[in-house]
This record gives sequence, structure tokens and C-alpha cells, in this order.
Amino acid sequence: MLNTQFFNSDTICAISTPYGMGAIAVVRISGPQTFPIVCSIFQHNGKQMVTDEITARKAYYGCIVDNGEMLDEVLVTFFKAPHSFTGEDSAEISVHGSVYIQEKLLHILIAHGCRMAEAGEFTRRAFANGKFDLTQAEAIADLISSQNEASHRVAINQLKGDFSKELQVMRSKLLEMTALMELELDFSEEDVEFADRSQLKALLQEILDKVNILKDSFRLGNAIKNGVPVAIVGQTNTGKSTLLNALLGEDRAIVSDIAGTTRDTIEETLNINGILYRFIDTAGLRQTDETIERIGIERSFRKIKEATIVIGMLDATNDYESMLSSVNDILDKVDLEQQQIVLCINKVDTLSDQGEAVLGRLRQDLDNDVIMVICLSAKRKFGLNDLYNALKHSQPLTHPDTTLVTNVRHYEALSHASESLNQVKAELEMNTPTDLVSMDLRQALYHLGSITGEITTDEILGTIFSRFCIGK
Amino acid sequence: MLNTQFFNSDTICAISTPYGMGAIAVVRISGPQTFPIVCSIFQHNGKQMVTDEITARKAYYGCIVDNGEMLDEVLVTFFKAPHSFTGEDSAEISVHGSVYIQEKLLHILIAHGCRMAEAGEFTRRAFANGKFDLTQAEAIADLISSQNEASHRVAINQLKGDFSKELQVMRSKLLEMTALMELELDFSEEDVEFADRSQLKALLQEILDKVNILKDSFRLGNAIKNGVPVAIVGQTNTGKSTLLNALLGEDRAIVSDIAGTTRDTIEETLNINGILYRFIDTAGLRQTDETIERIGIERSFRKIKEATIVIGMLDATNDYESMLSSVNDILDKVDLEQQQIVLCINKVDTLSDQGEAVLGRLRQDLDNDVIMVICLSAKRKFGLNDLYNALKHSQPLTHPDTTLVTNVRHYEALSHASESLNQVKAELEMNTPTDLVSMDLRQALYHLGSITGEITTDEILGTIFSRFCIGK
Repeated sequence: MLNTQFFNSDTICAISTPYGMGAIAVVRISGPQTFPIVCSIFQHNGKQMVTDEITARKAYYGCIVDNGEMLDEVLVTFFKAPHSFTGEDSAEISVHGSVYIQEKLLHILIAHGCRMAEAGEFTRRAFANGKFDLTQAEAIADLISSQNEASHRVAINQLKGDFSKELQVMRSKLLEMTALMELELDFSEEDVEFADRSQLKALLQEILDKVNILKDSFRLGNAIKNGVPVAIVGQTNTGKSTLLNALLGEDRAIVSDIAGTTRDTIEETLNINGILYRFIDTAGLRQTDETIERIGIERSFRKIKEATIVIGMLDATNDYESMLSSVNDILDKVDLEQQQIVLCINKVDTLSDQGEAVLGRLRQDLDNDVIMVICLSAKRKFGLNDLYNALKHSQPLTHPDTTLVTNVRHYEALSHASESLNQVKAELEMNTPTDLVSMDLRQALYHLGSITGEITTDEILGTIFSRFCIGK
Repeated sequence: MLNTQFFNSDTICAISTPYGMGAIAVVRISGPQTFPIVCSIFQHNGKQMVTDEITARKAYYGCIVDNGEMLDEVLVTFFKAPHSFTGEDSAEISVHGSVYIQEKLLHILIAHGCRMAEAGEFTRRAFANGKFDLTQAEAIADLISSQNEASHRVAINQLKGDFSKELQVMRSKLLEMTALMELELDFSEEDVEFADRSQLKALLQEILDKVNILKDSFRLGNAIKNGVPVAIVGQTNTGKSTLLNALLGEDRAIVSDIAGTTRDTIEETLNINGILYRFIDTAGLRQTDETIERIGIERSFRKIKEATIVIGMLDATNDYESMLSSVNDILDKVDLEQQQIVLCINKVDTLSDQGEAVLGRLRQDLDNDVIMVICLSAKRKFGLNDLYNALKHSQPLTHPDTTLVTNVRHYEALSHASESLNQVKAELEMNTPTDLVSMDLRQALYHLGSITGEITTDEILGTIFSRFCIGK
């Protein structure tokens, strides 16, 4: 944990570019002593740089010289507080990207009065100096770790501050309402009502709806961030693991003709057309006495519940009745309100004419608006594009600018806020005394405020910034 | 190979920072279309940047926007030709360091008219635009790959251009001499001598001496760059592999009590106090009928010859005569003029009082100015610091500013130049006709010129720049 007392008096430094060897690397310095420290080791036009000569945001070419020895030819850019990332005086030194130079420069800076930055400390200082709020700080961490277009877009939207603005609007309305109610308490002997109860109920419902929409967006937001969970389920030996391997293009799961080969659930993420999916290969559903396999099957049931999309695998070589019974088995475990189902009829490459007829009948009976049916051969990698399209259509579409909650911390705060608001709603219905209602309103305000950082504790800050990389 | 015809008309881009995720990453763009391309995707203060508004070397904060979608908040610095690394218009875009953003930005730049830079292309353009000569370009590659203080210092000196200056001075003197001699050819019928032969001989000797010093510095320069070769030799079972493992702090070599365990020579580099050593564990020296072991012993002999420092291992538990005979065995194989020898008496932790007496006598007889003797226990890692100090003193000291040749290409060119100059010297002694002497002088000039790049071929350039990383 950072000691907040000395928080901003230190001058910190860190390598901000990825670790390793490259053409160039950037070392970042921030804090009150940035300019004198950097000038003391930087020669521009053959003589030592003087702090008074600094033009902010100008890239100076020169040499890092320590104890008369030149370390490297560098570019130095100074940023003057508050017009910097951190809001403090800061500098970026662009060096040749040898690991030796990068580490040596840190040693030199530390010898001249810097200290190594902790993980996330640059961003934490930016937050402390009001450069952005907590959700934006968190968006930066998400942005850096985002690996695909969808998660990148969510992080960029959050960085732009749309989410914060929505929250602030709600919170200020709620605050106004609370203030009016608390004013009534001051005049409690006079029995006045500053806050119109019917207006208050309407406003409460409006905010509650918005909070719930944001809260519910977490399922999708989290899916985008960590991958849309897709469970592959079906009876034993329908080719679930073969499908996973075909999707991944590698031998991830062990496949064999022996029913019950897969016991553990295997998860792998895959980026298809810019969307990250988390495929979950589950144990085949069948009655078994084998203990390990039975545990596997129980896990499969849980995984099916957590999935956004369920791929139901069928074996095309089975007869009509047995396939239909499998479908019913799968549908039994799926919540069609919440989950999308894609039925994959596998092994169609091995079908006889009779089999084709069975398949035709099955498709006709099953394919509808709710259930998509596609035919494929996982082994021969035939029909995979149909599956990709089915997955794409199964994924609830969102407008690029829709605010999605992707952060567990935000989700939990919204859930708590929702609970408190529901409580307030019930209390208003029951004409509960104003002082009790006010307490629950304050709770809701607290939870909403904790998201953007209007209300924080050192503990929350420590948790948030520790997941940053050093140098950010 | 680059097509030199279109060499500078393309605008190139690359990620210049190390590969991977970090707080920030830098994408570099260079070429005539840099400003319009970058401006077309860069919004500053909420509106698209205009090329006319650009102030060079100023860090602009803004957004990369492509097709109406914001990719990232970035810092962009423009550099106006010829005041840039490449000597062309160029720009550096500092983005948040997600791999997705880095790669997406390259895609966007390419869609707007850039092409991916080839390895070393930025530096090659800088060379083509006269920003520095070939040795300096090569120094940049060495600088980036240098892993310790000594190799870093050699690269920095070369980057500063000291080596080039020495070469240029020699070459211009030689050129003057050649011109005078060739002038004589024009007046050959008149039998005049513009070039004073005795002055010429003196000058020739002076240049030859300097070329030879540079050429000979390669042994040390190469040692600094690739590690000072240290051969560990001695009879079987004296603990050579145990010493290597103790130095490395890991079980690199297989050790056992069985004589002849090590057959292959094992090489490992280790950075001790800023100097890189290349330790070579050799097969124990003994008479053997075992074919593989015999081949190993022959290799040991070769490795001893290549080493700068030879560590002779002795077993302290042996008697005086047998140790002395081992020492003579080792000294037989060492060139005391060229090589340093450090005798390590191992296993001193197991000595009896009698053994101590033998040791004392041996030290007295052996330790002198040429041979250093230290006592240690490789197994118990006792006495290693004495060995480090001995290695440090064995390493020929050089003044930090001494020019060292570290590049095989330079070494070969210097060797060829030396041959030609020797040839010229002999011809002058024998009063060979001027036109023949002039030809050899031209050869020497060619070889010296090829080092700095005054004389180059596309093939040489291709070989040099292909070993650069992308983005440099």
C-alpha cells in the first residue's frame, strides 16, 4: 500500500514500454523534482540542460551523461504540471531499447533522487490530481489488456467518460432528492413535505431502471471482456472435443472413440471476427457409475447454466428418435429466455441417403426462431463457417456506444445501489419515516459514488491500482 | 533486399518499442507522406490536425480516429526533415501499450498509404541521408543488443564516431599520397617524383601501425562483445564442472566422481562486475582409449588456444609432485605471452594439516607475476570472490576511450587493408613501378573506405541492416 502522506512529494520513475529489447524504449518520470533531476543528467547541444530553458512538450535531442560517461543519445520531452498525464511535472526519456540502457537509466535516475514507481502509480497520481475519475483509470488498465476489437471498444467508451457521466447525472438527481428529504427532518416539528412524494417515486423508478440496465449489461460486458461463454454439450461420442479442436486448429482436447474420454471441462478462448469466445468442452451427458466421470457431468450442468450460448451436439448417424431425445435432454438444461442455443448435427460427411432423409426431417422439425440448426463435420472441418455465423447471430447485438459494465467492482456497487433503491421504494410505499428512508438513499448514493471515485477508501484505491503494470 | 530505386519515396511505419503489452508503446513513421498520413487519422483539440499547423518536435495530445471510431488517446510528435533520426519527415505516435492497439494502428497507417518498414530500414534511411556513417549505424545495432557495461561502452564510443574519425584521417592521408603518385603517372615521360619516397615510406609505416593496432584490438573487442573466453582446464576429477556450476549458480554441467564425465565442451556466459565472460568447461586431460572422450580432449586443446584466460584446476588432495606435474601439463599448453593463467587449487575444504603444508609449499613455488594462484572449494562455493578478482586482473585493462574493433566486417576490412599496405611497403623497397604501387594503394583505400561506408555495395548494406530489429 502506498503511504498517501508522502504520495505526491516523491519523484517516481519507471520503464513504460513493454519489457525487453527494441529499437527504442521510454522511461517516464513524474513528480516535483522531475525537471531538476532530468536536467542534471541531460546534455542538450553539448551542455547541461537548465530547468529555466525548458519548453514544455518539446522533444529535445541530447545525451544522458552520468559521472562524465555518456549512457545514450536520447530524446527528452518535458511536461509541465498540470498539463501532463499525471497532472504533475513529468518527463519522458526515449532511449535506445537495450535492456542494459533501460535499467542503467533507472539506476541513474534513482541515484539522482527518483524512486521506482509502484504498479499503477502514474495513473493513481493522475486520479489524485483530478485528471480523470476512477472508472476512467480502470478503463486504462482494461484498454492496455484488451486483446480484441469488442473489448477495446468497451474500454475506449469507458475512457471517454460516458459511463461516469450517466452515473453522475443519476447521482446528482438522487442527491437533490435526498437533500430535500433531509431538509424535512430539520423542520420535522412543522410536518412539512419539501419533496413531493409522487415525483419522488417517479424519479426513484427512473434511476432504478437505469441502474438495473447498467447492472444487467454486466453479463454481456463481462462476456466481451473475458469471452462470450459457449458451452459445447451433448451425449458421449457426438464429437464435442473434436469440434473444440477444429475450432482451435490444434489438438487441445484428447479425442477417442471411447465414450467418456473428456472428464474435465476444458476452456479455451478464441477470437472470431473480432469477438472473443470462451468455448467450454463438457463431459458427455450419460448415465455413468464411474465417479470421476460423474463429477465431470455435474460440472457440465453448471457450465451450461453459466453459458450465454449453448452448442448442442448431435450425431447425424443416429436415428431420428434418439436424436430428438438428445435434443430434449439438452433443451431441458437450457434457459431459452436467457440463453441462445445452436444445434450442431455432426458427422454429416458419413451420412447415407437414408441418413440424409432423417436429417432433413429433423431440421424441418427443429429449426425455428429460437433454435438454430447447422450441419457440420468437426473431423473434416466442414461447416465451421456456418457455426461462426450462428455464433455471431446468437450474440446479442449492441450499439457501439451502448454503455456496458465490464468491471466486477462496478457490478457489485450497482447491485448494492439497486438493493438500496428497492428498499427506498418499498419504504415510500409504506410511508416509512423520512429519517429511515434518507439512510437508505445515502447508502445508494454511497454505492454510486464509489464507482467513479467520488467516495473512496485507500483500500479500494490500492486494490484498483495494484492490477496496473509498472510504468502506467 | 530493398529496391533502392523506390527507397525513399515510400512512407514506412513500424512498432519501435519492444513487442508485448506495456503502459505505452511507440509507433514510428518516416517518409515524404508522413505528415498528411498522420494528420488524416489524428484529431487534436477535437478536430482533425492540419499539416500547416504542425510545429516540429512538439508533443500533441489527441485521438487516433479512423472511420469515425476512436482507437486511442495518443501523443504525436512530428519531426521535420532533415532534423529527424532518418533525415526525412517523420513522426512518433505514443499509444497505450495493448497489443491490439499497436497492431490496429499499423493496419490503419497501412490503409492510409504507409508500408511496413523492413528490419533496419529507419537506420538505413538515416545512413542514406548522411545522418551518420556505416560504423555508427552498426554501433546502433550493437548498442541495442549490448547486455553489459563493457560492450555498451564500446558501442557508445563507436556511435560517437571516434572510430570513423580515426579511419577518415588515415584514409585522407593515404588518398593524398596516392593522388601525388598518380600525378607522376601523368608526367611519366618526364620522370618527375611529386611524392617524396622517404616521406611516403614514413607515412605508410605510420598508417600501417595504426591499422594493425585497430586490427589487433579485435581480439579484445570481440571478447568484450561476446564474452572474454575463459577455459577451465585440468586433469580429470579436479572439479572443473563443479566450478562452472558454482560460477553459474545452477547445475549446468553434469558432475560425478567418475573420471571423464564431461566430454563435450560446455560454454556459458556470465556477467561479473560488468564484464561478460564466456566460461568453457573442458574435458579432463588424461590418456584415454575411449574414442568420444579422446575427441573431447582434443577439443579441449583447441579451446585452450582460443581462450584469453586459462583457469588451471588442481586437486588440493593430491600430493606435491602430482600437482606440480599437472601444472607443467597445463603450462605446456598455454602461451604465457598471449594468455593469462589462473591456477585454482580446488577442494581446500577437505585438507588435512599435512595437506595444508603441501599447499603452502606449492603456493610459494608457483605464485608469481605471471601466474596467479588461488585456493577455493567449488563445491562449497568458498573462494569464488578471489577468483572474480583474479579474472578482473587478468583482463587487459583499456582506457575507456580506447577504440576497440568489435565487428567482424571491420576486422576483415582492416586485415585486407593491412595486407595491401604491407604490399605497398614491399613494393616501395623494391622500387616497383609507380602504377603497380598505386593499384595496391587503391586497394587499401577501398578496404578502409568500406568500413565507414564511403565505398559500399547494396550487398554490404543489405547484410548490415538485415540484422537490425524492425522499427529501427
